[in-house]
Amino acid sequence: MPKILAIAGGVGGAKLALGLARVLPPEDLTVVVNTGDDEIFHGLHVSPDLDSVTYALAGLTNPDTGWGVVGDSFRTLEALGRLGAETWFGLGDLDLATHIRRTVLLGQGLSLSQATADITRHLGIACTIAPMTDASVRTIAITDVGDLAFQEYFVHRGCEPRIAGVRFDGADAALPSPAFADAFRRADAIVYCPSNPLVSVGPILAIPGVRHAIENFAGPRIAVSPIVGGRALKGPAAKMMEELGEEVSCVGIARRYVGLCDALVIDDVDREHAAAVEDCGMRYFVTGTVMHTEADKVGLAREIVDLIDSWSG
Amino acid sequence: MPKILAIAGGVGGAKLALGLARVLPPEDLTVVVNTGDDEIFHGLHVSPDLDSVTYALAGLTNPDTGWGVVGDSFRTLEALGRLGAETWFGLGDLDLATHIRRTVLLGQGLSLSQATADITRHLGIACTIAPMTDASVRTIAITDVGDLAFQEYFVHRGCEPRIAGVRFDGADAALPSPAFADAFRRADAIVYCPSNPLVSVGPILAIPGVRHAIENFAGPRIAVSPIVGGRALKGPAAKMMEELGEEVSCVGIARRYVGLCDALVIDDVDREHAAAVEDCGMRYFVTGTVMHTEADKVGLAREIVDLIDSWSG
Repeated sequence: MPKILAIAGGVGGAKLALGLARVLPPEDLTVVVNTGDDEIFHGLHVSPDLDSVTYALAGLTNPDTGWGVVGDSFRTLEALGRLGAETWFGLGDLDLATHIRRTVLLGQGLSLSQATADITRHLGIACTIAPMTDASVRTIAITDVGDLAFQEYFVHRGCEPRIAGVRFDGADAALPSPAFADAFRRADAIVYCPSNPLVSVGPILAIPGVRHAIENFAGPRIAVSPIVGGRALKGPAAKMMEELGEEVSCVGIARRYVGLCDALVIDDVDREHAAAVEDCGMRYFVTGTVMHTEADKVGLAREIVDLIDSWSG
Repeated sequence: MPKILAIAGGVGGAKLALGLARVLPPEDLTVVVNTGDDEIFHGLHVSPDLDSVTYALAGLTNPDTGWGVVGDSFRTLEALGRLGAETWFGLGDLDLATHIRRTVLLGQGLSLSQATADITRHLGIACTIAPMTDASVRTIAITDVGDLAFQEYFVHRGCEPRIAGVRFDGADAALPSPAFADAFRRADAIVYCPSNPLVSVGPILAIPGVRHAIENFAGPRIAVSPIVGGRALKGPAAKMMEELGEEVSCVGIARRYVGLCDALVIDDVDREHAAAVEDCGMRYFVTGTVMHTEADKVGLAREIVDLIDSWSG
């Protein structure tokens, strides 16, 4: 089996990460996760993307939303509201335990990588989930109503403001996390999960050295398009790309990954775009990419692993 | 109506505090609460006695336990346990909101008094609940297995270790909270709620100046015995007094309050001890002191207010 470094953001990334975790031996999979969305709520360190991947791999994901914990309730949050706290960011009772525990571990001096390893180990996750960095990086949406921290833009304002760009405060002084660097060194292939290229993969590529190293990576680099049939399967990717003047299609995704990707996995409905993807200097691979069931996730992961296994450069 | 400063610890104190709050106009009641039991759990500032009084006055107390919030669940705590955290201190989901909010407010630079005022205001409490101090005071049980922080002794070890004494670390450098000092200056009477004299009232009396000021207080000082029929109605008061060689009766309580109390309210079943109470230099007042229902709490509070109203020094 190839050793895979998977790059993931939130919901879509978590789905393929789960598929890969079912297909690969745990020592052959490291999922590197965006932390630019991290935010402090109620004094607690919340890492939405790390948690989406963690809950997916622990079998805890709420199937109705794709994020949060299945069967969760919101009693503490409602009580916080009665005490005058802002409650626009949904934090379930079971989910809160993760944030409380992470905050305790960070307060004890652990790095975010170490805290994540502790949490995932207790949840029975055998592969490695690594934050992109242990430094603080903040994704900022540059919008027509001013600069907004990502959760403020994404959750509180429902992506309503029009964006002119994004930036990643703190990225300039960040380094990849130890597990990221280690997995990169050992990896046979890189897989970009179907995550938002701007605000999920973008922060990871903004860490000094990462883009350059991926450009020079020896093995196959496979991306799965998060845009299917001209729409984002989840989240604001399509709206953001449109506002930035980018083509909202798998071709727009391919253009973002020029020099960083050897093959783009596109959905059956996007077969017409195959030639345009090739024009971006990468191969295309057509299959069903929409993941509803666990079988969908495992199936897509298996196709990607097969593609890597049969890769000839 | 007399202006009353009530001194309270946990469950028993909260019961009489509720009664007093039902009888007095809110501006005439300040409940000064022990904070020697405060502890950090999961990075959150937990103030068990402040919360017992707060929940009582907000009508939120779990009637089955006398502490915690009615109808609470323990989902976050259970999830914390799955993440490897210690969970011997029961923190309900609704209760957690209070600790999370308090920790946020303290982190913003508010004093414990200010944080308490913010929380109680949001819960619709009109009278003042004041921590005894805004400084950190830690009640330590000196036991046959070593010195134990109070919650470790009380909750984790179930008061099993034999105590040789208690001490209040940090009390030497503490001052009364502003609301405590202000209420003391304005008070017509002081009421000791039926709280543990060693570890609920003791820490309050250990704050420099408090004992001296109460000794010289001009108005009536009324205590309600927490020992009824030779037993503590709740908590470890009887066991602690016995291990310290004190008489486990309302007379033992009277001896603790010599010079600090003008009248001890004792239960009907303790009528035989009336003369011994008088020998401690205080009057006695016999009535039913066991508070099961809200009517019991209001009734006892009303009798105490009547006693103060008819007081002749």
